[in-house]
Amino acid sequence: MTEFTKLSNQELRHHQEELRQRYQQFKSRQMALDMTRGKPCPEQLDLALGMLEGDTGKAFRTDDGLDCRNYGGLDGIPPAKALFSEYMAVEPDELLIGGNSSLNLMHDTILRAMVKGVMDDAPAWGQLPKIKFLCPSPGYDRHFFICEYLGIEMIPIEMADSGPKMDVIEDLVAEDDLIKGIWCVPKYSNPTGIVYSGETVDRLAKMKTRAVDFRIFWDNAYAVHHLADGPAPLRNILTACKMTANPDRVFMYASTSKISFAGAGLAIMAGSQANMNWVKNQMAFQTIGPDKLNQLRHVLFFRNLAGIEAHMQKHADILKPKFEAVQNVLASELDGKNIAHWSRPQGGYFVSIDTLQGCAAAVIKMAADAGVKLTPAGSTYPYKSDPQDCNIRIAPSFPPLEDIQAAMELVAICIQLISLEKISG
Amino acid sequence: MTEFTKLSNQELRHHQEELRQRYQQFKSRQMALDMTRGKPCPEQLDLALGMLEGDTGKAFRTDDGLDCRNYGGLDGIPPAKALFSEYMAVEPDELLIGGNSSLNLMHDTILRAMVKGVMDDAPAWGQLPKIKFLCPSPGYDRHFFICEYLGIEMIPIEMADSGPKMDVIEDLVAEDDLIKGIWCVPKYSNPTGIVYSGETVDRLAKMKTRAVDFRIFWDNAYAVHHLADGPAPLRNILTACKMTANPDRVFMYASTSKISFAGAGLAIMAGSQANMNWVKNQMAFQTIGPDKLNQLRHVLFFRNLAGIEAHMQKHADILKPKFEAVQNVLASELDGKNIAHWSRPQGGYFVSIDTLQGCAAAVIKMAADAGVKLTPAGSTYPYKSDPQDCNIRIAPSFPPLEDIQAAMELVAICIQLISLEKISG
Repeated sequence: MTEFTKLSNQELRHHQEELRQRYQQFKSRQMALDMTRGKPCPEQLDLALGMLEGDTGKAFRTDDGLDCRNYGGLDGIPPAKALFSEYMAVEPDELLIGGNSSLNLMHDTILRAMVKGVMDDAPAWGQLPKIKFLCPSPGYDRHFFICEYLGIEMIPIEMADSGPKMDVIEDLVAEDDLIKGIWCVPKYSNPTGIVYSGETVDRLAKMKTRAVDFRIFWDNAYAVHHLADGPAPLRNILTACKMTANPDRVFMYASTSKISFAGAGLAIMAGSQANMNWVKNQMAFQTIGPDKLNQLRHVLFFRNLAGIEAHMQKHADILKPKFEAVQNVLASELDGKNIAHWSRPQGGYFVSIDTLQGCAAAVIKMAADAGVKLTPAGSTYPYKSDPQDCNIRIAPSFPPLEDIQAAMELVAICIQLISLEKISG
Repeated sequence: MTEFTKLSNQELRHHQEELRQRYQQFKSRQMALDMTRGKPCPEQLDLALGMLEGDTGKAFRTDDGLDCRNYGGLDGIPPAKALFSEYMAVEPDELLIGGNSSLNLMHDTILRAMVKGVMDDAPAWGQLPKIKFLCPSPGYDRHFFICEYLGIEMIPIEMADSGPKMDVIEDLVAEDDLIKGIWCVPKYSNPTGIVYSGETVDRLAKMKTRAVDFRIFWDNAYAVHHLADGPAPLRNILTACKMTANPDRVFMYASTSKISFAGAGLAIMAGSQANMNWVKNQMAFQTIGPDKLNQLRHVLFFRNLAGIEAHMQKHADILKPKFEAVQNVLASELDGKNIAHWSRPQGGYFVSIDTLQGCAAAVIKMAADAGVKLTPAGSTYPYKSDPQDCNIRIAPSFPPLEDIQAAMELVAICIQLISLEKISG
């Protein structure tokens, strides 16, 4: 296909006319498709139904006789800690199992840090006139929302294929002791799908930070969520932090929201023993303990990491055709036109499209007008402000395959129409 | 039985000798009994096992077709909101369903208030040099721990049979705008068992507070947890607050921890629409939503308030003999001796004993030395400091009946021995 910028005026008009007709056809179909969030589809959720059934569903005692129905167990039941220490590649005393939401654990860590700090010998973050977080972007909107809500200044950091640009990060944290944290989705990053390289992990672990209480918020949401032949390798950041004498630098998070049930999974937080003790000492004021019955169900259903991995293969079997459909439509509609490029993720929940500068919001609006809701423009950037107005996040997990094909065709038509306007404008 | 203070020296010595022998006998039995916390016993937890079994256990769709396995539902699923609006006697849009812990909801409300305040036109509590809470005492230790943790100054308020002493409260809140809250367990209060009178509720609702952002933390933990023939009446404080033009004064909390499963129940927060919107707007940064499968299980198992009440009758059948045993032992050991008085609760989870001044810590230690762990001395007062050193909280729900009888006999022996020491001084 010819690059759009190399088309004659006549060719442009011809294309435009054809695309407008196709757009009107879509509009007349009155689709009502929501592709805004990375929600598992019902077929994925069905995979874990065994957890609610029979002996697993009604189990309430661990092998050691602990009654999971009663109070207690602030950091989780021992077999759940064993399972997820394997999953997180940390020791059982380096993690805790929370409720159903890792976002909740992250939010609470930061809210507590505002009031109490993150260590004994540094002030509460809220006592300082201002604090700042580094925000590799495009990134996860809910991370950024927490910062905005709490008045934490966000500094966007550009992403490379190996992770956020480390030169920039190293310079910033070495200078500014008000920079207290960085958000990272290190594997199959939301939305770009990139996996942090070993070098990136090591540099994050060993970089000199002016703030003694700098913390990496390591949201490993997609650790086993591969689409290709197997999970991509990710270096263990806790090990890297320990090796560089910064053992307390990282708070790690994960959940089974996209393994078992999106709304009824388990959330995990991990880090050094010192960090976990700090957090548990504070959590003891918040709760007597999380839902241990749900932990027991997860243990009995998955058994071990191999069980989780086998389960995730079934997820991949459902998701792969959907992600392939996105790639196929984008390729057949946009290849060679030089108006967009997009990610080809090996895992995770998103495809990230970058349009020509200044086109994303218009594309998203145009798609919405024809019945396809995408993640709102700018969402993947701090303050919902995409400086180039070019990023579109596609979440293909939930809708059925045929809807995804239709939706992506519509999105591709919108991208072309808006690009043509821009080029001819 | 003769009052101890009227005994001759010889009689005192005789009693003492006899009691010491009985104490030694207990000690030689090497009991290991934990009566520290208000934990339901396994038989109580068994009552709700139907929730985990069969169609109820594996249900995941509401009648309206909502898939409870997926993300969403920040304030709860509609049928759970309907059930608990009946339970809380509020409108469905005046409540939210949280995770498994009402303590968690209370803690989070206060932690957020430290950073964000509780309303638009008042500063965050943490921005003030100091804030204070009124603490009716004896009260619930975990309430007091939250204040201590967050540096909130606690002002103990004496309890009468009708609730906390309102004259004192009214004077304090009218004067001091740093008083931002009060902890209340209005029904079958922990540990005294008293129920707030209608007048107390009304006065709390209508009293003039110097602080515009004063809030009542209404922890109605034992709303349907009666031991006698039926639940004692409690006036609806939200209605009372609305009638006195203070609709936003109260945050109400409840949970099913002592209805379904102590560690896997549902927590509820309720209040005016304005308050609920304030809270939900903030919670949206914390979580995508609570565990909706557990909500659905509760709805299908209990159906309606009548279902909950019928279920609570079964709890009462289990608990009543245990509470009677406590009363019987205390009466037969201590009646007429004028060395202690104790509550005769019509509901809730505790019996509260007041010893002679300066005896409680010694009694608790002495019982522990013989193998019976009671709630630590002072726990029912702010800063764990019982000014009279006289309050002992008895939690008879968990141990088997025969253990309770033995434990209470031991406690009564310890009370007599320590009292005799004090009297013969």
